[in-house]
Amino acid sequence: MKMDFLGRRRQLAARMDGANLDCLLVTHPANWYYLTGFTGESGSLVVSRGRATLVTDGRFTAQAKEETSGVRIVPQKENLAQEVGKVLRAGRAKAVGFDQSQVTVGQFSLFKKAAGPRMRWVATAGQVEALRERKEAAELAEMRSAAILAGEVLEGALALLKPGVRELEVAAEIEYQMRKRGASGPAFETIVAFGERAAHPHARPTGRRLGKNEFVVLDLGAILAHYCSDITRTVFVGRASGRYRRWYKAVLEAQCAAIAAVKVGVTCGEVDAAARQVLAGYGLAEQFVHSTGHGLGLEVHEDPRIARGQKRKLLAGNAVTIEPGIYVPGVGGIRIEDDVVVHEDRTEVLTRIPRDLREI
Amino acid sequence: MKMDFLGRRRQLAARMDGANLDCLLVTHPANWYYLTGFTGESGSLVVSRGRATLVTDGRFTAQAKEETSGVRIVPQKENLAQEVGKVLRAGRAKAVGFDQSQVTVGQFSLFKKAAGPRMRWVATAGQVEALRERKEAAELAEMRSAAILAGEVLEGALALLKPGVRELEVAAEIEYQMRKRGASGPAFETIVAFGERAAHPHARPTGRRLGKNEFVVLDLGAILAHYCSDITRTVFVGRASGRYRRWYKAVLEAQCAAIAAVKVGVTCGEVDAAARQVLAGYGLAEQFVHSTGHGLGLEVHEDPRIARGQKRKLLAGNAVTIEPGIYVPGVGGIRIEDDVVVHEDRTEVLTRIPRDLREI
Repeated sequence: MKMDFLGRRRQLAARMDGANLDCLLVTHPANWYYLTGFTGESGSLVVSRGRATLVTDGRFTAQAKEETSGVRIVPQKENLAQEVGKVLRAGRAKAVGFDQSQVTVGQFSLFKKAAGPRMRWVATAGQVEALRERKEAAELAEMRSAAILAGEVLEGALALLKPGVRELEVAAEIEYQMRKRGASGPAFETIVAFGERAAHPHARPTGRRLGKNEFVVLDLGAILAHYCSDITRTVFVGRASGRYRRWYKAVLEAQCAAIAAVKVGVTCGEVDAAARQVLAGYGLAEQFVHSTGHGLGLEVHEDPRIARGQKRKLLAGNAVTIEPGIYVPGVGGIRIEDDVVVHEDRTEVLTRIPRDLREI
Repeated sequence: MKMDFLGRRRQLAARMDGANLDCLLVTHPANWYYLTGFTGESGSLVVSRGRATLVTDGRFTAQAKEETSGVRIVPQKENLAQEVGKVLRAGRAKAVGFDQSQVTVGQFSLFKKAAGPRMRWVATAGQVEALRERKEAAELAEMRSAAILAGEVLEGALALLKPGVRELEVAAEIEYQMRKRGASGPAFETIVAFGERAAHPHARPTGRRLGKNEFVVLDLGAILAHYCSDITRTVFVGRASGRYRRWYKAVLEAQCAAIAAVKVGVTCGEVDAAARQVLAGYGLAEQFVHSTGHGLGLEVHEDPRIARGQKRKLLAGNAVTIEPGIYVPGVGGIRIEDDVVVHEDRTEVLTRIPRDLREI
């Protein structure tokens, strides 16, 4: 399916009208890709009613012309801020929106100087992200493929979990298999954590070798046609003790409860609480040291955040991870994560591989 | 060799004294790794005379305690800015340095609010980067290994360049081989560009298949023990025509001239000009659309930048890439890149594989 870049720019322009902005300065690569299809890594996009101007440097101008349609490409001659200032002045903009969560203090003072003293700058974070949050059908089609790919790679990686294998070797094989299946790369640094290393939710793979009777956490995601997936499974090497089985059961129940809570109109905080309550019932509330999930799409961490106290309500088209976990320093950890899409009338789980405890 | 994290914090404190700062807020992961050894992805480090305090969230606190020494770890309870504000107030800081090129407009207003109205904030970008620019012996030892690894992987990848192979397959194999050899991952998205795609300096690998009589640009780097390498070679599949040989010769001469210009006390602009002059002599000045190189270390793009007009002088311990290239839209491109270290009395080229035109 083709992405409707022009339609998105029109939607954005409608939002800008509502906010009394003449134009919006877009400085974040995922946002300019969303609005134009440009995949370069440097530049700035100025979107106004009926016009989009992309400033980029010599490394990316030819590429920008190939990748975009209906976008004016301005080669950056001096520095980026100078060139953007020229575009803003030439467009007679008076009020410019910018994203204060993306623009640094230093960049902002350069942009202001280059645009001249008459420009009014309006901090208005998340304008493009608000569109990105509600995935279109074409985006969901890509996300389904990315999720299935991640699941297949994870299944394949289980075969590597023989005593003696190193975390780094498994991570390398996982990322290789992603690319072999068409991914442009991993959506984040693959986590492969054995035994007590699994007590770190964001463990980086090391040279540690797999032993017996320990948990293995595999957390991986692929970028396929620009869209991210993110999946985690925890398996046990050997026969899990009663205590470990109870832990696993607690995390799985917590995850099921959170997935069951996902629905249009429910707050993100309520989904988080659903997982947290189950773990509290098992006396494991303190061991759940992070939030339940996050939005997913062109980036691996997007809005909405599924975290404690979040008042924001789920909307149709939201795509989020649900990934409760418990972590016991010196012993290990368990996390189970799937990718979930909110539809008007149902919840779709994109990641499809089994979640029961596997002993290998 | 062991990194002297404490020694670096002492050097930083001496710089802060010079700048009349009570403490420095460090918000960039590469900088807090440099100063403490902490490899987590979220948090903030506050360095003052004789004290370092790292604020990080529940996902990273256990890891922070394991990885650091002599650093107070403060678990982040509410949001990061709140917690950092508390640390600053408890430390009775009056003047806090921050990096305006790292801190966003939004973060800055949260930090300011949390620290209270009496705090004086001083925009002082690049304090840690200024230390990082001059590599220590222990760092250069890691960088040598990372450069050799990248060269070996590149040599190995040449064997894959048979007609019909896809750019993406070659890129996947390259990154897999890096990790097999101990890299924690690629330093940047590996570039594999065939034929006319090589006209994009930052081409992303696609499904395009290799034909005959075309250039192949391979640009790759590995992260090994936290340090980056970055190497590019361009080879020709088939017998290169006279025009193509002349282009290759021009780029290679430009690169040799720039490497020969590298010396303590020479400005970065002079090194850039050395490459540019050679290409101008071949009538190819317009085709060289980027700068000659960049610093390299914990990050793949660091100071100093080897670019047009840069007045900054090279210092012993600087590690930079030298990578001139030419790009002809619709036809192809050629780039040759090596990693070079500036010593008091000599220039060391870290990347060791041949640079002559190879026809395969």
